[in-house]
Amino acid sequence: MDNVIDFVNVNRDRYLDELKALLAIPSISALPEHAPDIRRCAEWCADEMRRIGLQNVKLIETAGNPVVYGDWLNAPDAPTILFYGHYDVQPVDPVELWQSPPFEATIRDGEIYARGAADDKGQVFMHFKAVEAHMKQNGRLPVNMKFIIEGEEEVGSAHLDEFVRSHRSELAADVVVISDSGMFAKGVPSICYGLRGLVYFQIDLRGSSTDLHSGSFGGALANPGMVLAQMLAQMKDRGGRVKIPGFYDDVVRPTPGELRDLARSGFTVAGFKRDHLLRSLRTDDPIEVMKRIWLAPTFEVHGIAGGYQGPGVKTVVPPRATAIVSCRLVPDMDPKKIVRLVKAFVKKKNRDVVVYAEHELPAYQGKTTGPYADAIRGAMKFAFGKEPVFVREGGSIGAVLSMERVLKSPVYFLGLSLPEHGYHAPNENFDWPQAEGGMAAFADYFRRLGEMRKA
Amino acid sequence: MDNVIDFVNVNRDRYLDELKALLAIPSISALPEHAPDIRRCAEWCADEMRRIGLQNVKLIETAGNPVVYGDWLNAPDAPTILFYGHYDVQPVDPVELWQSPPFEATIRDGEIYARGAADDKGQVFMHFKAVEAHMKQNGRLPVNMKFIIEGEEEVGSAHLDEFVRSHRSELAADVVVISDSGMFAKGVPSICYGLRGLVYFQIDLRGSSTDLHSGSFGGALANPGMVLAQMLAQMKDRGGRVKIPGFYDDVVRPTPGELRDLARSGFTVAGFKRDHLLRSLRTDDPIEVMKRIWLAPTFEVHGIAGGYQGPGVKTVVPPRATAIVSCRLVPDMDPKKIVRLVKAFVKKKNRDVVVYAEHELPAYQGKTTGPYADAIRGAMKFAFGKEPVFVREGGSIGAVLSMERVLKSPVYFLGLSLPEHGYHAPNENFDWPQAEGGMAAFADYFRRLGEMRKA
Repeated sequence: MDNVIDFVNVNRDRYLDELKALLAIPSISALPEHAPDIRRCAEWCADEMRRIGLQNVKLIETAGNPVVYGDWLNAPDAPTILFYGHYDVQPVDPVELWQSPPFEATIRDGEIYARGAADDKGQVFMHFKAVEAHMKQNGRLPVNMKFIIEGEEEVGSAHLDEFVRSHRSELAADVVVISDSGMFAKGVPSICYGLRGLVYFQIDLRGSSTDLHSGSFGGALANPGMVLAQMLAQMKDRGGRVKIPGFYDDVVRPTPGELRDLARSGFTVAGFKRDHLLRSLRTDDPIEVMKRIWLAPTFEVHGIAGGYQGPGVKTVVPPRATAIVSCRLVPDMDPKKIVRLVKAFVKKKNRDVVVYAEHELPAYQGKTTGPYADAIRGAMKFAFGKEPVFVREGGSIGAVLSMERVLKSPVYFLGLSLPEHGYHAPNENFDWPQAEGGMAAFADYFRRLGEMRKA
Repeated sequence: MDNVIDFVNVNRDRYLDELKALLAIPSISALPEHAPDIRRCAEWCADEMRRIGLQNVKLIETAGNPVVYGDWLNAPDAPTILFYGHYDVQPVDPVELWQSPPFEATIRDGEIYARGAADDKGQVFMHFKAVEAHMKQNGRLPVNMKFIIEGEEEVGSAHLDEFVRSHRSELAADVVVISDSGMFAKGVPSICYGLRGLVYFQIDLRGSSTDLHSGSFGGALANPGMVLAQMLAQMKDRGGRVKIPGFYDDVVRPTPGELRDLARSGFTVAGFKRDHLLRSLRTDDPIEVMKRIWLAPTFEVHGIAGGYQGPGVKTVVPPRATAIVSCRLVPDMDPKKIVRLVKAFVKKKNRDVVVYAEHELPAYQGKTTGPYADAIRGAMKFAFGKEPVFVREGGSIGAVLSMERVLKSPVYFLGLSLPEHGYHAPNENFDWPQAEGGMAAFADYFRRLGEMRKA
């Protein structure tokens, strides 16, 4: 392994320049005007795959953005790893909060600041480079490897399931590795074994056909801004509990073992607040915080909009108001049932309010034992010098379930970002020590798998 | 009077061209980038005043936008009218709902469509042209006249009170005439004798310093969008009644006479809905609707904003949410007391929510009897062929109270817009018959005042 790590060190400056080039492409999947950037970014990934020695590299078209595919399948007796990542990124607004332009990667105090630095370009890049180092030093890989890098993760991976289904045999693998998550904290190597699911709602209320003068009409009309606020207020109590009947019915209570793991995780509320610049939490009990972010469902308003939002005064009764909301789901909540409950609740309270639902993704619960889990654990210990802990994450990755269900392969997470790296936020960043650790972990991981002969 | 009306008819095409030039200036006072247009519009009004024969025409600077002043003071024994209007306009968004560009006045089916067509450039223009017609035909006016056209009405007339105070003697007049309101309906001449007051609030909630990933944090944090919705929902019940303690304490109940006037007004809910394209009202009782829009206070959300509002998905817990709200006030509500009540209510419910208050304007109640009221009534009957009714309006004009209190002159409304003219809305418009009626009414009004010798 030493020669692989040496190669990474020697090539550090070149690697940083190449990463900057990848981060410079504003591949924001949520905004249609960035469609050309999406394609440019897919092409960049394909070129990079060819440079590092992968074969059969191609863009595979979907009904949405293309998936970039590449493989290396010249280790006949060894297992096959399918690596998954994504090349699309979140929007950058509020852009005025960025300290440097989001698509000009800037290094400050050893951190690389750019949209996508951690989520997920930085992590994808790290895997490319682990492969490159291994290839350059050894001329070959110890395992078979397939890469798929998708372009719609940040908008719910709408076409990935169909892609996986229609390329089932091409994607067949013994194990899937995903690097789109994080470690628990710097110096605390951790492996994610569960993700929350997601359903996504738009709650719309249309009143009049146009702005109405609040002097001439105010008082006689229901005001969509107020009615929407009243609707939302009926959906969640002030302590944060969702008030939609049946919402919690299928939530699996944490096992005593899980609660013990939480207690052993070393999570502190003070550290969590400091890392994320949080002013206050709903509770300062660390177990309760972990339960709320990993083991409990949510009902969060992402955006609320209606009426005049410019400077100065415009005294209208607005014609319409909208809220964008999502629910994170935990085992065993059924996304379709949650959609049904939310729609029924809203309809009962106010027939003028319309609910659109999207992205019905259940929660994911992975395995923490067996040879592939042992290999991940061993590689993380090799790279970071400490026994890793298995933890859950609060986020959602649509791809996970598709791959597990369709390919019938176990899915493992090799996530290297840190809590302070600011996923989805202004000033997203990544740091070289984590990247280095990630390359070492991935290289050691495929070495370990190479030693596992196929049954 | 006939020669004045003849002059208007002969010059109709020229008048329309000149009005279009005035409407072409996007003098939006709420948007700082239109400051040059504000000044250009003030200059246009000054030039027009000179063209029609007013004297001492000038822009008078204020701490905000300039007031355009002009006079004609050559009728020593006759009363002096101070005419008030405004040259600024509302913003145009949502601009996509306009059927023709808001600053390219377009005539369709006899209506002139443009921002400001009714509120207030069209009405100001009509008064200019009544003066012009009289001057051209008779070489002089029968009364003394002062015009002030301000540029901040649509943002609360913040500097008008100071302007009126510091130019008290220059503005001295026997009577003030305001043309910034409407008639009850086409063919139903009406004179406004009361306006609602206004206080304007921004309700702000700041949570984290930045967007936070709803997967990683959702559940552990109070969500500003939801907390703001919950706050608003506590302020008004679902029937539309304000729940802030003390809010209604000082509201004067309508007198039996006022209720009789409402019943006689000819107002119908069907007509009100049809004219304004309203889908539904809180009540279909016509007296109750009139009470709610003219005689009762309001608490209306004008805008609500927080978090992501672009297309697609951005699953963040937003750092902040804001609502813009105003209360229309009726006699004898005290704006300062209402601000105090709202702030105390919010503070008691949630100390993180910040309330900013602006534009503390009490309601206005005018006189319906006396020689000046009789002159307005007579002029409206002359122009529209029917005895006018005195009604209240639900809107607010800050200038009214300043002028009444500082100049100690009675204020009368000569409003000519119609309900269907769409004040503050997309496709605002005005029509030539109303403009013609307005010119006839104003010309007849100053003829009547010219016959009143000064005491």
